[in-house]
Amino acid sequence: MPLTKAEITRLRSLQEKKHREALGLFVVEGEKVVGELLAAGFPFVEIYATDAWSGRVSRPDEPRLTGDGSPYPQTTAISAAEMARVSHYPNPASVLAVGQIARRPLPAGTLDHGLTLALDGIQDPGNVGTLLRIADWFAFDRVVLSPDCADLFSQKVINASMGSFARVAVHTAPLADVLAGCTAPVLGCDLQGDDVHALPVLRDAIVVIGSEGRGLSAAVAARLTRRVTIPRHGGAESLNAAVAAAIVCDNLRRAQK
Amino acid sequence: MPLTKAEITRLRSLQEKKHREALGLFVVEGEKVVGELLAAGFPFVEIYATDAWSGRVSRPDEPRLTGDGSPYPQTTAISAAEMARVSHYPNPASVLAVGQIARRPLPAGTLDHGLTLALDGIQDPGNVGTLLRIADWFAFDRVVLSPDCADLFSQKVINASMGSFARVAVHTAPLADVLAGCTAPVLGCDLQGDDVHALPVLRDAIVVIGSEGRGLSAAVAARLTRRVTIPRHGGAESLNAAVAAAIVCDNLRRAQK
Repeated sequence: MPLTKAEITRLRSLQEKKHREALGLFVVEGEKVVGELLAAGFPFVEIYATDAWSGRVSRPDEPRLTGDGSPYPQTTAISAAEMARVSHYPNPASVLAVGQIARRPLPAGTLDHGLTLALDGIQDPGNVGTLLRIADWFAFDRVVLSPDCADLFSQKVINASMGSFARVAVHTAPLADVLAGCTAPVLGCDLQGDDVHALPVLRDAIVVIGSEGRGLSAAVAARLTRRVTIPRHGGAESLNAAVAAAIVCDNLRRAQK
Repeated sequence: MPLTKAEITRLRSLQEKKHREALGLFVVEGEKVVGELLAAGFPFVEIYATDAWSGRVSRPDEPRLTGDGSPYPQTTAISAAEMARVSHYPNPASVLAVGQIARRPLPAGTLDHGLTLALDGIQDPGNVGTLLRIADWFAFDRVVLSPDCADLFSQKVINASMGSFARVAVHTAPLADVLAGCTAPVLGCDLQGDDVHALPVLRDAIVVIGSEGRGLSAAVAARLTRRVTIPRHGGAESLNAAVAAAIVCDNLRRAQK
């Protein structure tokens, strides 16, 4: 049964944040990203695929299995022409999947335990995705995004996370406010801080990363309890946000050994 | 005097690698990138600017000074309409500069001394630029690009390097061949290598970084003398190339302290 015009309009509309927010749904397209999220057990609510999908949808009513053994949501077989109409890309992929937007609550005291990566106004979606991947690699307990970060549910963020989108607990919250009452140390990078190579053992910590262009906002910078510096040897004025975050995370984990 | 049609055609043609190679010239556009390279003392051979340039070109024959005190090349004042014709962008910048493509020779034995970052098939220009910035931050002596890396003289690479393009010595060479006779240790990232936190003091070393999608080419992987692993704690399968390189560089420098 072909997709109705209304269904095509709805799927296309999810390319825009305002429609994602209104419907509480997001969409990702592409064999690689859909495959990564399925492998991580992400509970998509709809999957649309052509015959070219490597998961080969021969019968739309045939359940498929996700990485954790639970069945895929019912997969709808569509034609290449239909995919072209719902696709985000000039060259449509063979699969497109819809997920629910879940907003995780952040009860007071949450950030006092374990390791948190907090992103303050990171607007480049590729950087946000790369930072999720770093949080995942270093097994941080959570990521907190300030409301002005790139939209977590945009395809570019999810693509760049290489599947980590499905594995990392992500919250969105006004950063300066949630950092206000924290007892865990709040670390930020600075050119005049303590040497990151001399970090003590920190089981609980919040690592705050500012935007590439503007650095930390004043309100968030005021919440830092420990400024750390990555030793510089040459002429570059700074490192990019994801690179700096990764070096701090590696040194935090190294100190814990 | 307005730009001739031939001059406009020549400047526009430099957006393509084949024309850059034919003319031995490259072009960058934008106040930020031109400003960064001028501040680093890069010897541009031509600069075209409108009245809107913060360097305000009032008289085209007035020499300007670069960061190191040497005069800017003669700056040509052009109209906004002319800039729109030579620009790479839908929204033309106020300045565009032309530099000479310099190919640095790489005499045998060069890589045996000091620290080298070697990029094997990194095709994303943003990643190549970010890696130049990392090499600059950690004061590596040089970067070697395999011939299939993104073109060093493309605007995207130079932009992403944030000025490091002008400070880092970059060579292009067939990597497996130049690594063949090296006496310095050749380090590469691997999931089953030695812990990067246990690196010995290495004054001379070559850090090889493979492409995000394909990793190291077989010929280059065969030249590694030390495989290193960044300890993983969580679920991500890998880190991106620039992030992994930065962590290895930080640990190399930390071991030297």
